[in-house]
Amino acid sequence: MLTINKHYLKLEASYLFSTIAQRVAAFQAKHPERTIIKLGIGDVTRPLPEVCVKAFHDAIDEMATENGFRGYGPEQGYDFLREAIAIHDFQGRGAHITPDEIFVSDGAKCDTANIQELFSQDITIAIPDPVYPVYLDSNVMAGRTGNFSEGRYQGIVYLDSTSDNRFLPSLPTEKVDLIYLCFPNNPTGSMITRKELGAWVDYARANKALILYDAAYEAFIQDDSLPHSIYEIPGAREVAIEFRSFSKTAGFTGTRCAYTVVPKDCVVYDRVGNQYPLHGLWNRRQCTKFNGVSYPVQRAAAAIYTQQGKKEVRELIAFYLKNAAHICETIEKLGYEYVGGKYSPYVWIKGNMDSWDFFDLLLEQAGVVCTPGSGFGKCGAGYIRLSAFNSFENVCEAMERIGEALKKVDR
Amino acid sequence: MLTINKHYLKLEASYLFSTIAQRVAAFQAKHPERTIIKLGIGDVTRPLPEVCVKAFHDAIDEMATENGFRGYGPEQGYDFLREAIAIHDFQGRGAHITPDEIFVSDGAKCDTANIQELFSQDITIAIPDPVYPVYLDSNVMAGRTGNFSEGRYQGIVYLDSTSDNRFLPSLPTEKVDLIYLCFPNNPTGSMITRKELGAWVDYARANKALILYDAAYEAFIQDDSLPHSIYEIPGAREVAIEFRSFSKTAGFTGTRCAYTVVPKDCVVYDRVGNQYPLHGLWNRRQCTKFNGVSYPVQRAAAAIYTQQGKKEVRELIAFYLKNAAHICETIEKLGYEYVGGKYSPYVWIKGNMDSWDFFDLLLEQAGVVCTPGSGFGKCGAGYIRLSAFNSFENVCEAMERIGEALKKVDR
Repeated sequence: MLTINKHYLKLEASYLFSTIAQRVAAFQAKHPERTIIKLGIGDVTRPLPEVCVKAFHDAIDEMATENGFRGYGPEQGYDFLREAIAIHDFQGRGAHITPDEIFVSDGAKCDTANIQELFSQDITIAIPDPVYPVYLDSNVMAGRTGNFSEGRYQGIVYLDSTSDNRFLPSLPTEKVDLIYLCFPNNPTGSMITRKELGAWVDYARANKALILYDAAYEAFIQDDSLPHSIYEIPGAREVAIEFRSFSKTAGFTGTRCAYTVVPKDCVVYDRVGNQYPLHGLWNRRQCTKFNGVSYPVQRAAAAIYTQQGKKEVRELIAFYLKNAAHICETIEKLGYEYVGGKYSPYVWIKGNMDSWDFFDLLLEQAGVVCTPGSGFGKCGAGYIRLSAFNSFENVCEAMERIGEALKKVDR
Repeated sequence: MLTINKHYLKLEASYLFSTIAQRVAAFQAKHPERTIIKLGIGDVTRPLPEVCVKAFHDAIDEMATENGFRGYGPEQGYDFLREAIAIHDFQGRGAHITPDEIFVSDGAKCDTANIQELFSQDITIAIPDPVYPVYLDSNVMAGRTGNFSEGRYQGIVYLDSTSDNRFLPSLPTEKVDLIYLCFPNNPTGSMITRKELGAWVDYARANKALILYDAAYEAFIQDDSLPHSIYEIPGAREVAIEFRSFSKTAGFTGTRCAYTVVPKDCVVYDRVGNQYPLHGLWNRRQCTKFNGVSYPVQRAAAAIYTQQGKKEVRELIAFYLKNAAHICETIEKLGYEYVGGKYSPYVWIKGNMDSWDFFDLLLEQAGVVCTPGSGFGKCGAGYIRLSAFNSFENVCEAMERIGEALKKVDR
């Protein structure tokens, strides 16, 4: 008799964004006349940058010829892309990362979900709250938690991010082995300073722990004094894996390309303290379970590192940040507390009511889709997330409607 | 202290095809004057079909416009592709599969490696020998085996495929829960009949087991009396998951698209016998750890289901099968035993010496890369695999060189 991975049964009923999609579809079916504006899921809306489009087309033309055709590529990604990444995203910022430490993939979601496979089942894991659900769910599936009880999985060390700590979690008071961090943060939009991030690196070094640093929103950082990569922090090469994505940088959510940096200095231990480089383990994982990213997609991704590509990406980011600024401005005027929106496409708003109630209110009264904060964890209760990924016109329209709807709310 | 997933330490030192690549690179470095012909890794060489190229370009043009742009797609794949697959690959052959039972992915390698996550760690697994290494390695990593000893992982029920059973493994004599099958077979190129496959379906039904059926080479079947899909067998919907790929069908190894069929009738059990549909579990796995396939790639894949697309795919397959026929003919003339090459791009040849010795002999004496059979398992010892994926000219040249080299071998 084939038996189930019992840990799947611990998972909460459904994936957050599927639930939202279902609620929105049900509302739209009931009210076909209403125009719904989506500021929920963090999905880009602008066309692909022109440089990417051109490189994408050119690569397909290669694939159409006998001499230019490429079959299986390296599981780790093509050198032309890994080299461009190392130079422009890291070395140019003083972070010593070499091309062979970069693993190109089809998504940061896949990588952040798969990386836990390398570790033993009984490690202690620290995960922020609120958080991108994938970090948690992938560990639940792997059996690293107990049951879900009172809004939390047993066995996880939750790192509370609240207004009390400016949405920057404090170092754990107990010893943990694996730490998930994400800056600019999803969902709160908060950002960490060099000094604050340095404290995490010091903690990891002192405790033989590892930081999984999700920097998918790095392109939104507009202040050079803030860390764009964890490898700008001395010592981080020994204790941090970084995840990056072209999704939010260059509008690749539907095109699919990302990468993970595994420095050769990162190690994991066996019970008696022998060290094993994580680089080799991740390489083995990827070679066994992954076949590399589509060649034309990698060419499209590499185009953002040209001079013209950098310019187009800057314009794209500026476009969304203008939307975010408008959201912040309106929310401020309406007298609600919020964070984010400055170095992030996300604005995290305290709704003074249950998250799903606020979600329903905005959907029904304003025809605007947000993401309920409670979907990201217990500390998200009472919050919602608005995303700046839409046209400026739609964002203006949405904020006007939200303004009208919230004026009617008895506070 | 962060501890390692100790099961990774049980893995044999390296992934087969990486080892081959290293040996070939070393040889080429030593002998830069030699022209090497690769008939090793199963990687296509012909350009993408014209219909795919056109659809690929068109989709990118959509992504370059405000109205045509698409962000995150459904994790399960777009309806246009799932519907075309259901109609053309299944319903058209009398196999009752609906579009929502199809999960589009970026590779059959990923899917066959990831599917084991749904099952408990202590199930009994039957895996053919020789076999595509991914089935085994993914289960080793998940802790479902003991150590590697005398050429085999402890705890696995190996299904011997030898000349004694015409390279079609017999039903296990002990009770197993999960069975990996692959037809047309990789690496042997052997093919199963409806009746023989029916016996496996009956076994699975009687034992509450599940068959993981890898049909990545389905397009090479030229005989309509043979099963193109396991769902042509009555009752298979309840006990089989099928993996398919566009890699070998339409030359997508560098473009990346595949799919997995999880019928809604397939279930897995808990300890007390409660049933859980695998469809929902795989959906949850994919929604949590995967973000769908690149939209332009899905459009390119869907193009093979047009009339022109079907014609181009047929021509592509005929091209490789002509190569395979030439390989078989030469090997036959040379007096070596072989199987495959008829409904498969692979020819499995008994070399009358150690596999790696035969590999080195062909590399050094003929400048031809094969795959050593022992890399696929204990039963592959003494065999090599030749692949038909190359130009006809190169295959002819390779076979001529092999003929010369083998004439010198003292048998």
